[in-house]
Amino acid sequence: MAIDNPQPKGSPFINGPRLLDRHRAMAQIGATANGGVNRQALTPEDTEGRRLLLQWATARGYTASIDPIGNLFIRRPGVRSSLSPVMTGSHLDSQPTGGKFDGVFGVLAGLEVLETLDDHNVATARPVELVVWMNEEGSRFAPVTMGSAVAAGAVPLERVLATQDTKGMTVSEALAQQISQLPPLESRPLGAQGFAYIEAHIEQGPVLEGARCDIGVVSAIQGLHLYQVEVLGFAAHAGTTPSKHRKDALVAANALIARIRSEVADPLDVLRFTVGRFEVAPGSPHVVPGKVTFSIDLRHPDPEHLLRTGDRILEICSGEIEHCSISAKALLRSSPVLFDERLVSVVLNVAESRGFAHMSMVSGATHDAKYMADRTPTAMIFVPSEKGISHNELEHTEDEDLCAGTQILCDALLVAATMEL
Amino acid sequence: MAIDNPQPKGSPFINGPRLLDRHRAMAQIGATANGGVNRQALTPEDTEGRRLLLQWATARGYTASIDPIGNLFIRRPGVRSSLSPVMTGSHLDSQPTGGKFDGVFGVLAGLEVLETLDDHNVATARPVELVVWMNEEGSRFAPVTMGSAVAAGAVPLERVLATQDTKGMTVSEALAQQISQLPPLESRPLGAQGFAYIEAHIEQGPVLEGARCDIGVVSAIQGLHLYQVEVLGFAAHAGTTPSKHRKDALVAANALIARIRSEVADPLDVLRFTVGRFEVAPGSPHVVPGKVTFSIDLRHPDPEHLLRTGDRILEICSGEIEHCSISAKALLRSSPVLFDERLVSVVLNVAESRGFAHMSMVSGATHDAKYMADRTPTAMIFVPSEKGISHNELEHTEDEDLCAGTQILCDALLVAATMEL
Repeated sequence: MAIDNPQPKGSPFINGPRLLDRHRAMAQIGATANGGVNRQALTPEDTEGRRLLLQWATARGYTASIDPIGNLFIRRPGVRSSLSPVMTGSHLDSQPTGGKFDGVFGVLAGLEVLETLDDHNVATARPVELVVWMNEEGSRFAPVTMGSAVAAGAVPLERVLATQDTKGMTVSEALAQQISQLPPLESRPLGAQGFAYIEAHIEQGPVLEGARCDIGVVSAIQGLHLYQVEVLGFAAHAGTTPSKHRKDALVAANALIARIRSEVADPLDVLRFTVGRFEVAPGSPHVVPGKVTFSIDLRHPDPEHLLRTGDRILEICSGEIEHCSISAKALLRSSPVLFDERLVSVVLNVAESRGFAHMSMVSGATHDAKYMADRTPTAMIFVPSEKGISHNELEHTEDEDLCAGTQILCDALLVAATMEL
Repeated sequence: MAIDNPQPKGSPFINGPRLLDRHRAMAQIGATANGGVNRQALTPEDTEGRRLLLQWATARGYTASIDPIGNLFIRRPGVRSSLSPVMTGSHLDSQPTGGKFDGVFGVLAGLEVLETLDDHNVATARPVELVVWMNEEGSRFAPVTMGSAVAAGAVPLERVLATQDTKGMTVSEALAQQISQLPPLESRPLGAQGFAYIEAHIEQGPVLEGARCDIGVVSAIQGLHLYQVEVLGFAAHAGTTPSKHRKDALVAANALIARIRSEVADPLDVLRFTVGRFEVAPGSPHVVPGKVTFSIDLRHPDPEHLLRTGDRILEICSGEIEHCSISAKALLRSSPVLFDERLVSVVLNVAESRGFAHMSMVSGATHDAKYMADRTPTAMIFVPSEKGISHNELEHTEDEDLCAGTQILCDALLVAATMEL
């Protein structure tokens, strides 16, 4: 990709009120009492969100298609349709008590760019394609970024389709159910790739707000490991079993977590260590727990530090603790990813040119952009999250920040879409 | 009650093969893959168990009735029907991964006594009544011994009927559903009481086996407190939130449990402290936990020690820990209960007379007998539990021990039922 002129001279202004209206409409789907959303992947709410988006897209005449893992593509044609597209996108699914802009912002910002180009009769050499990735959050079906990982060939389609939710329903079944409730869509093969991919997203952390910046120019995504640990004790009567006869899986799991936390503790506070799921069986108040299963989410920007820490955790999670046996396995080991330097420069330059306060940063969260980066020059744009609150119903981004991020996305995509190879 | 002749001279022998057959038939209802049962209160399995029992009872011409909280009564008439009955009983409900003799033994032993009396044409002055208490285990609906507590007036009927399971179904709804699936039953008011109540039960602990005894003569039940603790943090993104900004409810709850455990630790190993339920919200691997709710089951035979420890736990469970707020409430505070000395002597004497190795003991588990003891002279008979395993699918009691316990129950009830006031 050659960048002759990264300045967005003549780039049209996006339609802010329309962008905000659409956010409000989307936030009603799966709305929770505390102002967030619960729109987990492939649930009826997720389906309703996709239907609404498709309604907006088809009203403007864009064509829509879906790949075998349920990634949804909306395309605005280019002057030269043989050229590979300039792409943008994000996800519509949420955490169970998620915020209303997480993922949605990147999707609606992308749609706004397509419509802005139409409003201003801007023809681009390359097609512009908006993608809605299936199951970025990994909440109902683990792990995260399922759709983009399959699209990139990082995990096999068949294995992912067989993944079950806690009620035993597979991705395959849930996806078939969703597709039957969407308008007819063109089928397309796996392996989405393009000339460039730029994803807009809320930061989900406190850095931009703390630095009083409007725009984060994201140069990389830190690595993410996900482990599942099982602690096996022996269920026993809470009233009759003396301490010395117990194999209490909860006591053992807590001791194990305390030990791991103390061993991996990072004085620089760069490593992220989280036990987010913790399930006790049989789970009755009057029974000594016989089994505990818990998750470890581990992240670090340095690939070697991450691997070393992950290996150490697997080492600790073997053998016995408090008379209970421990076993652990890695569900995901995803290395840090560096974005395309030239495309990151495009974002930096348009932010500079529009006069927004901006900074370069590493993403703490993983994103679908991580898998696109394997096959397509990729960059990301962050907008601030109030108090850094994310994966929480109180997550918030100000209207002007949503508009600023969308404008930068529009400018950057236009630079990429009109460039000649 | 005056006991002139506690020797069971002329007491008939129970029918061991019939008793064991019925245990095998009952163990098939809700049978689990690992040899236990899942027959939680007011589930279809519980209903099926009650139907089978009623089938056996009505085949022998016994009358059956039910009280407003779902306790089921099966009556063999006495010569003098105006006299208050001699009672026995236990429960048919189980833990989710419970054993096949817990509760069931006391019910089937009671039925065996009624039938033995008929087989041998033994008339008793007093009626003999078998009771099946509703929801002893407190697993689907908390807390434990729900039916006997309401019968004794210890908790109000209306409040208990409104108790919900985790899916939001009330006891009232589940009970109505069960009754609609049972054969027609006479209604009787709350407030069951009798001339005497003797409950047979498996020990659920390792004491009898360790002492090589066949029969436990139970003189008391230790006290039981049940607490619910809530730790409130703030849900946050696992990838973007630095440690210093986290309010991780799981980290805080684990620190809190470790602190309580260390403060209440009992070098004599008499105190029982168990966290059996531990629920994390939102429970996604990629979200820092915002809330943890856990239970504390606390037991001790000494009322003052128990109260002092419970108060100390409530004191610790207030304020803050690891930047999270703590709140706690007592769901149950049940004092230790001493059984009727004269009735305990009846059990002791018949065990002695039959030549079984026996010992006096305190029950580590709570039982419905606890609430009967408020209104009716009460005693209990224990039989050994293999390796002390209980509330576990591997729970086991040997055939000869089931038969011995039933014989002692028969002898003791007969002494009580034929006694004159």
